[in-house]
Amino acid sequence: MGVGDVSKRILLGRKLRSSQLGETLLPKRIALPVFASDALSSVAYAPDEIFIMLALAGASTYAWSWKIGIAVAVVMAAVVASYRQTVHAYPSGGGDYEVAKVNLGANAGMTVGAALLVDYVLTVAVSISSGAQYAAAAIPAVSGHEATFAILLVGVLTALNLRGVRESGTFFAIPTYGFIVGLGVMFGFGFFQWMTGGLGQVESAGLQIEPSPGYEQELTTIGLIFLLARAFSSGCAALTGVEAISNGVPAFRRPKSKNAATTLLLLGLIAITMMLSVITLARQMGLRYVDPHHLDRLRNADGSPVGDDFDQHTVIAQLAKAIFDGFPPGFYFVVICTGVVLVLAANTAFNGFPVLGSILAKDRYAPRALASRGDRLAYSNGIVFLAVMAVALIWVFDAQVTRLIQLYIVGVFISFTLSQLGMIRHWTRHLDTEKNPAARRHMQRSRVINTVGLAFTGTVLVVVLVTKFLAGAWITLLAMGIFFLIMRGIRKHYDRVADELSADDSDKVLPTRVHAIVLVSKLHKPTLRALAFAKATRPNVLEAIYVSADQREADQIVDEWDRRGLDVPLKVLYSPYRELVRPVVEYATEIRQANPRGVVAVYIPEYVVGHWWEQLLHNQTALRLKGRLLFTPGVMVTSVPYQLSSSKVALARAERGRRRVLAGDVRRGAPSVPDRRGYRQED
Amino acid sequence: MGVGDVSKRILLGRKLRSSQLGETLLPKRIALPVFASDALSSVAYAPDEIFIMLALAGASTYAWSWKIGIAVAVVMAAVVASYRQTVHAYPSGGGDYEVAKVNLGANAGMTVGAALLVDYVLTVAVSISSGAQYAAAAIPAVSGHEATFAILLVGVLTALNLRGVRESGTFFAIPTYGFIVGLGVMFGFGFFQWMTGGLGQVESAGLQIEPSPGYEQELTTIGLIFLLARAFSSGCAALTGVEAISNGVPAFRRPKSKNAATTLLLLGLIAITMMLSVITLARQMGLRYVDPHHLDRLRNADGSPVGDDFDQHTVIAQLAKAIFDGFPPGFYFVVICTGVVLVLAANTAFNGFPVLGSILAKDRYAPRALASRGDRLAYSNGIVFLAVMAVALIWVFDAQVTRLIQLYIVGVFISFTLSQLGMIRHWTRHLDTEKNPAARRHMQRSRVINTVGLAFTGTVLVVVLVTKFLAGAWITLLAMGIFFLIMRGIRKHYDRVADELSADDSDKVLPTRVHAIVLVSKLHKPTLRALAFAKATRPNVLEAIYVSADQREADQIVDEWDRRGLDVPLKVLYSPYRELVRPVVEYATEIRQANPRGVVAVYIPEYVVGHWWEQLLHNQTALRLKGRLLFTPGVMVTSVPYQLSSSKVALARAERGRRRVLAGDVRRGAPSVPDRRGYRQED
Repeated sequence: MGVGDVSKRILLGRKLRSSQLGETLLPKRIALPVFASDALSSVAYAPDEIFIMLALAGASTYAWSWKIGIAVAVVMAAVVASYRQTVHAYPSGGGDYEVAKVNLGANAGMTVGAALLVDYVLTVAVSISSGAQYAAAAIPAVSGHEATFAILLVGVLTALNLRGVRESGTFFAIPTYGFIVGLGVMFGFGFFQWMTGGLGQVESAGLQIEPSPGYEQELTTIGLIFLLARAFSSGCAALTGVEAISNGVPAFRRPKSKNAATTLLLLGLIAITMMLSVITLARQMGLRYVDPHHLDRLRNADGSPVGDDFDQHTVIAQLAKAIFDGFPPGFYFVVICTGVVLVLAANTAFNGFPVLGSILAKDRYAPRALASRGDRLAYSNGIVFLAVMAVALIWVFDAQVTRLIQLYIVGVFISFTLSQLGMIRHWTRHLDTEKNPAARRHMQRSRVINTVGLAFTGTVLVVVLVTKFLAGAWITLLAMGIFFLIMRGIRKHYDRVADELSADDSDKVLPTRVHAIVLVSKLHKPTLRALAFAKATRPNVLEAIYVSADQREADQIVDEWDRRGLDVPLKVLYSPYRELVRPVVEYATEIRQANPRGVVAVYIPEYVVGHWWEQLLHNQTALRLKGRLLFTPGVMVTSVPYQLSSSKVALARAERGRRRVLAGDVRRGAPSVPDRRGYRQED
Repeated sequence: MGVGDVSKRILLGRKLRSSQLGETLLPKRIALPVFASDALSSVAYAPDEIFIMLALAGASTYAWSWKIGIAVAVVMAAVVASYRQTVHAYPSGGGDYEVAKVNLGANAGMTVGAALLVDYVLTVAVSISSGAQYAAAAIPAVSGHEATFAILLVGVLTALNLRGVRESGTFFAIPTYGFIVGLGVMFGFGFFQWMTGGLGQVESAGLQIEPSPGYEQELTTIGLIFLLARAFSSGCAALTGVEAISNGVPAFRRPKSKNAATTLLLLGLIAITMMLSVITLARQMGLRYVDPHHLDRLRNADGSPVGDDFDQHTVIAQLAKAIFDGFPPGFYFVVICTGVVLVLAANTAFNGFPVLGSILAKDRYAPRALASRGDRLAYSNGIVFLAVMAVALIWVFDAQVTRLIQLYIVGVFISFTLSQLGMIRHWTRHLDTEKNPAARRHMQRSRVINTVGLAFTGTVLVVVLVTKFLAGAWITLLAMGIFFLIMRGIRKHYDRVADELSADDSDKVLPTRVHAIVLVSKLHKPTLRALAFAKATRPNVLEAIYVSADQREADQIVDEWDRRGLDVPLKVLYSPYRELVRPVVEYATEIRQANPRGVVAVYIPEYVVGHWWEQLLHNQTALRLKGRLLFTPGVMVTSVPYQLSSSKVALARAERGRRRVLAGDVRRGAPSVPDRRGYRQED
């Protein structure tokens, strides 16, 4: 087979591939659990946060809980409707970042990028901390050690993701549908009990809540409004993760946008139903719930403190315990499914983080190495970075969901708001050119939806900023600012380099002559191969160089050179202190100075070994020399490899590594195993 | 200036250099402190150990102390006499390792190498732990925290050595001569007081020592012999470090061997005098000294326990306190000098360790990277390894000199003994050929000296093994065994590789054609330079390759290619999953398969940046690609560097780094700053 055939075959590969890609795409029934775990898992902690905030003023304010729930639901409906417009307009998976960048410019794009980076860290921290609370509800031994348990969980997730865990449909489908069905059955049974008058009370019913310091007196109207605003903005934690689908459109089956929009609608309905059900039932069943770190504000019915060994379980756990009273499997099923879905939500961040990194890298806001799927090192660094940041947050905030939530929501709503604003611009821009009346009507409708969305998310953002800035949102804003500056710095650097590198016409001058040097350390196969290869390039001058620290060794090699009758002259450079790099660099520099229009080609024989410990034993010098020669103008450095038999080990390892699934593959719409479905399909 | 001139100049450099090297060599008065700190510092703990061992049976056995001191002195005299033969016979600085390897074979050499590696670790651990005791004598706050203080000291030494501390004459001379003079004055004054009847008692005089469990009854003869043997073998700690000069002969001024032998004699005389003085004075001044961790065996004169807050100071500290009674500066001078000399002794190990590593590496018993002075990474790894091992020992043994000594001496005497045995063989071998009667007489005399040395060191080794095996020597032997196996494994690996690489006549076949590929990622200066360089080598086929994941980008680059009128064909490889490495490797492989006798030359344009963070942002892909292509047979990989302006930073940094002094330079006889005195002298 000739070279022409090869390249044609490679060029032709494309058509086949695109059609086959479809097979790895997700049907709606699988896409829902893949993208929903993050959003749905919020139900596990958002209602709790509403009750915690209201409880600041004592249990009397619980009357407001369902109104706050409805307010959150309305915002969620508006946001879902808005994102349904986004998935139609931006089906490429760039999500909020792309919308902001295209419509609002680079700074808005970077702001959203920074917000998303922070959000991924917080998704891990919040979901895992909440998961630890559920674990404490099911496993008494975990109670009191939630932070340790949470850090261990992050460790396990990190290890799995570094190892390359396979995100598959079933992986997500079983626990997510388990969670939906489990909670659905619980709610259904609960409402049935309510209607039939058999609804019990939760374990915390009958407790009294002492108001927090500052709330002891009757609330003023302004005080009440501020309290409700705090509760509302905490409840908006329920919206986190709703945007995930807009990043995953490419992974859907065709028609991608339509399927994504439908899935998003379904997700919104389920999330709203769940949240309102939790709040309604909790209210009805007499729930009393305070910040787990202010349990001293809980009193028994007789006014005595509940004591140090009182264990406050999460709202869903309390509901499940009461509704499935006398049927422990129901309780355990709900609690375990909730915990697993929370872990899946955290895993979502591990999957989304590298995807975001590659998108930022393509726009040169992140190191270029992140752009390609293949750079395992960059990829692993990203995962480790995410894990370290999340562990730091969990550790600093002692796995307290309530405090982490203060940091979480602001980033989410910054990207929501910028994204809505971008969408309005998008439609306005398109309306300028669109003539078709039907399309115009459609666009105008979309613009109204996004405007409503903007009104809601913008309001929430203001509320969040006002109510949460001092409580932790400043940390998020600070982190976002740092990421923003780093991204801008990286971009500036790349731009400066591109500027320095941009070609002009002076760059076409051909070197007049090639002076080739073959480095000789011993007279073995690699050296002979390097000599042969160098000779094959027919340089103007070809010489072999031996750097000697010892006259006797030098004499030996010169003798052997003569004995073998090698027809390349061998030159000995004397290096008294066993330095190798410096004499070679100086010699190359001086050749080049003697002939500034020529080029010096340095040939380095290298033998290639397979095991990591072999690499420790070999080629350190060649590596250093190559590194150093690259700084020498007018020099090119050629490695002539000689493959030792052990090198096959490394080749096999590389092959195994390449076939490994990487986190994020499923939601990027990339096939899990490229060499089965992709590149070499046509062989 | 033509190339011929350049290379001649480089070749000529040698003569000049050798004569100038002399300037950096050490006169005897500086060599003594440089090489003596290790040996002399033993006086700071060896007498203590004799008293501790004798105290096991109570203070009555102290009567034996001066006899044991004399026995140790006799052994030391024999060892010094033996090593004076070694420095004449082996002036190259290989020391015990070289003697054993040349005369007794590779296994003996590796055994000595392993023993020396272990000894360096223990030199650090013992010297620093003892130094911490002296610090506790001078600074009450350190008392009780010796281990922490010792670990901190190791940390400081490590940092200094990683940073590249300058071993200079004054650096050693001041504290070492201070130590010699300070102790000399103290002894002189002490003996004067004794003669004039004014010698006081040390602080521990008058205390009673309760015998250790098992020694309560009257000692049997065998029991006494065993006790004396234990005390003697602990006292032999005084001999550690005596061999240092035999590794440092090349650093002496001419006549090197003679000067080294004279210095060695002086060292021996000083060490023996000091040790015997300490023992005699301590005996006379009523010292009572037990293992610092069995202070409960000390009783006041009235039989009451000394109590928990009793602080037992080292022997020299007690002597200094009593002799300089009423003159605190004398006490502090002696104690501080002793402490500093102990730290210098530890630093000796930091200096000797890389030297030993490079000697082992030259014989292929250690990674080759250790052989060259220039490999900073290998060098730093060695220092960190030494520090970690020493800290581990200090931590495990809680900085207890007495327990660490049990591990220390066995390694020292293994290399002493093998070295003596090797010297006997050496003389016997030379006697076989030597005809000159005067020379023969000289050799026979030397052989007698070494035989006496062997008799002593061999006996001590047996005594040490018997008395200390269970007390810790087994740990040393185990560690030596591990080092031995590692060295043998490394050597075997290098031999196998050398075998696989050894040239035969089939290796001279020239490739028939060169197919050159220039990788193109963008059309910028580096690419144009790579194209020009590749073209200058006049390959049979030259083509540019662009790997595309995106049809639009590919079209753009093809357009620009045409617009610029580049006369090299551009081929586009399509890579759907943004993989770069794989398509290139496959393409190269297929070209090679189509023409197995040809060679594929892959040209990679690279731009070179200077800051470490720039390196994170660039060239990761080129690096991965190069790494992977090296595994592909019939391919050579050429980096065509383009130096960005920031690359000058890295160049300057490399230059600064190269000029830095490395630990071990002084005792290797290497000039501290090569570019001032060495390589470029002739410019």
